[in-house]
Amino acid sequence: MALVNDHFLKLPNNYLFADIAKKVNIFKAQNPRADIISLGIGDVTQPLCPAVIEALHRATDEMASAGTFHGYGPEQGYDFLRDAILKNDFLPRGIHLDRDEIFINDGAKSDTGNIQELIRWDNSIAVTDPIYPVYIDSNVMIGRAGIKGDDGRWSNVIYLPCTAENNFIPQLPAQRVDVIYLCYPNTPTGTALSRDELKRWVNYALKNDTLIFFDAAYEAYIQHPDVPHSIYEIKGARRCAIEFHSYSKTAGFTGIRCGYTVVPKEVTVATLYGERLPLNPLWNRRQSTKFNGTSYLSQRAAEATYSPEGRLQIRKTIDYYMLNARHMKETLRKIGLKVFGGDDGPYLWVQAPSGMTSWRFFEQMLYNTHVVCTPGVGFGPSGEGYVRLTAFGTHEQTDEALERIKNFY
Amino acid sequence: MALVNDHFLKLPNNYLFADIAKKVNIFKAQNPRADIISLGIGDVTQPLCPAVIEALHRATDEMASAGTFHGYGPEQGYDFLRDAILKNDFLPRGIHLDRDEIFINDGAKSDTGNIQELIRWDNSIAVTDPIYPVYIDSNVMIGRAGIKGDDGRWSNVIYLPCTAENNFIPQLPAQRVDVIYLCYPNTPTGTALSRDELKRWVNYALKNDTLIFFDAAYEAYIQHPDVPHSIYEIKGARRCAIEFHSYSKTAGFTGIRCGYTVVPKEVTVATLYGERLPLNPLWNRRQSTKFNGTSYLSQRAAEATYSPEGRLQIRKTIDYYMLNARHMKETLRKIGLKVFGGDDGPYLWVQAPSGMTSWRFFEQMLYNTHVVCTPGVGFGPSGEGYVRLTAFGTHEQTDEALERIKNFY
Repeated sequence: MALVNDHFLKLPNNYLFADIAKKVNIFKAQNPRADIISLGIGDVTQPLCPAVIEALHRATDEMASAGTFHGYGPEQGYDFLRDAILKNDFLPRGIHLDRDEIFINDGAKSDTGNIQELIRWDNSIAVTDPIYPVYIDSNVMIGRAGIKGDDGRWSNVIYLPCTAENNFIPQLPAQRVDVIYLCYPNTPTGTALSRDELKRWVNYALKNDTLIFFDAAYEAYIQHPDVPHSIYEIKGARRCAIEFHSYSKTAGFTGIRCGYTVVPKEVTVATLYGERLPLNPLWNRRQSTKFNGTSYLSQRAAEATYSPEGRLQIRKTIDYYMLNARHMKETLRKIGLKVFGGDDGPYLWVQAPSGMTSWRFFEQMLYNTHVVCTPGVGFGPSGEGYVRLTAFGTHEQTDEALERIKNFY
Repeated sequence: MALVNDHFLKLPNNYLFADIAKKVNIFKAQNPRADIISLGIGDVTQPLCPAVIEALHRATDEMASAGTFHGYGPEQGYDFLRDAILKNDFLPRGIHLDRDEIFINDGAKSDTGNIQELIRWDNSIAVTDPIYPVYIDSNVMIGRAGIKGDDGRWSNVIYLPCTAENNFIPQLPAQRVDVIYLCYPNTPTGTALSRDELKRWVNYALKNDTLIFFDAAYEAYIQHPDVPHSIYEIKGARRCAIEFHSYSKTAGFTGIRCGYTVVPKEVTVATLYGERLPLNPLWNRRQSTKFNGTSYLSQRAAEATYSPEGRLQIRKTIDYYMLNARHMKETLRKIGLKVFGGDDGPYLWVQAPSGMTSWRFFEQMLYNTHVVCTPGVGFGPSGEGYVRLTAFGTHEQTDEALERIKNFY
């Protein structure tokens, strides 16, 4: 008989968003006329910009005749997109990368989940807490995370708390670790790291021979010049960091599926015998074996975000969401709530008043204002006592939600 | 320091298609005026059909306005496509599946590579030989395949030879195995299994408590009524088999990326304590954690292949390729070559004359006829002495290639 990978069985059966949906659905059934506004799940609401739509139509037309049809593309992505990325996302920041250091994917979730395949199951990992659950769950599935304790912590994962007490700036780990996951601007807290703060992490990694998996999915939301858009803005990072990008939040591609991963050739890992090996060819081999490239249409769509019109159009949408964020932060602060994030990221991290738990605050908000948020504890133990609100709603929904919250609290 | 997953290092550095490209490029450099025809890589050449093109334009227009925009879809795929699959691919064959037994993906390569994550690293696996390299390589990466011997065989993989001697009908394994990969109609040989032959495999699996990973990517090419399109046409298969489908070859989606995996709820694996667990929720968890759904556009495109016009149009293209296959088989047989496959699959499996090796035959064909094939040994040890030709060329290319081969051999 085939034996199960029993690490899968360690994952709890209930999922955050399923639990939320259940509570919302019960409330809806009992209050069929309630006008529920969801500022919970981090999905975008604004349509694709005209430059992207045009590119998709054009690419579709190419697929309609044999002379311009595109079959299998390179597993690593098309050169037209890799070159556009180099030219637009990195060169203007003084970062020189080679084309074969860029790997196009179908969104950051796949690669942030798959990247851990390259390293041994017994490497130690650290995560900031709260955090995007994929980082931990993908390590649980291979046995690297250990066992989940009653305190909600996995035995082999080092948690670096981010709370109001440390102003959401995680402390460097007390011990050395092999791998650290960082996501900045952060989901779920919406906070960012300044250049000097990120420099501390790169220096720690270089000193301790640590690998950083850096998730930059929200970099397009950065407003302050002091916040780096890429970890490679920091000297030495190309020797210790892999970086993940996504068009999901940058250009509303949550339904289109496209992103990319940067694996600089200088990043190495060690064999048991101490030999150093570059990760780039290993990732290339992984992608060539288990991935067949991203849709040609999605890649042409991503390319269009770099055209002069495309850039203006996606900027306009980001400004739209960040106007929500500013409005939310001001309003919620005015009524006395403690609110974090939202300056350089599309999420607001709101502390529950008077020591309430995340879930209690979630329920209070749902039952009394009909606004859905995400309980912070779902993102990790240090998320307890907070909820996340997204700035991805429409202005109208957001304003209405704020009005109701203002009236209740 | 982070330690590498050293199973990756066991993979040979050279890849079949890279080696082919190298040899072809050298020849091109030395013979710049040679008109090379590639019947090597299994990519399609005919454009997407009008029904699919129309669906893509329509879906693109939906993405252009907020009211019809689609963000994150379900990781398991949209119901409109899952229902179309149930209604068109299974119900007409008397197969009743539930919607949540269908998982939409971005092509069969990802899922045939990822499915092995669900089982323990020490399960025994068997493959027919020659075979699609992803099955073995994905097991190598997790350590399940063992070590590669000088004979080209991995120490923990059981090889079931398919050669002219057994008419490409593999023998059941002598010992019991935990997992068997089957691909029918087969890549690379282009051969198929009759209903009675497939029944033997299902019965073996049920008797031995073996899990079958069944790759049905080429089922649309089946011509004979006696060849099953789905393993679930065989009684009992829903208790032991997972099935992979793809629109790549069915509808020319190699650049669009869409397929699906069937995980019936009755398929179980065991814990070390002998408890039986259904694989369906484990796969669901895997997909929810490491995958964010296939592009909405690709899913609408796949749905269009089931419309009345879509069905006729994709059938026409398949007939076009199968006309190539028939023509190739007849012509090559006429000149005395031993040719297999091509009746129910888009590949021809050609035995090298007078005991030549695969690579020698490849070179002879390249240098003398300027036709590129794929050396059979690249698909496994039992592929030695054969080459693969695809029927995916245009009529004109195929005819010209045959003319040249006829003149030389």
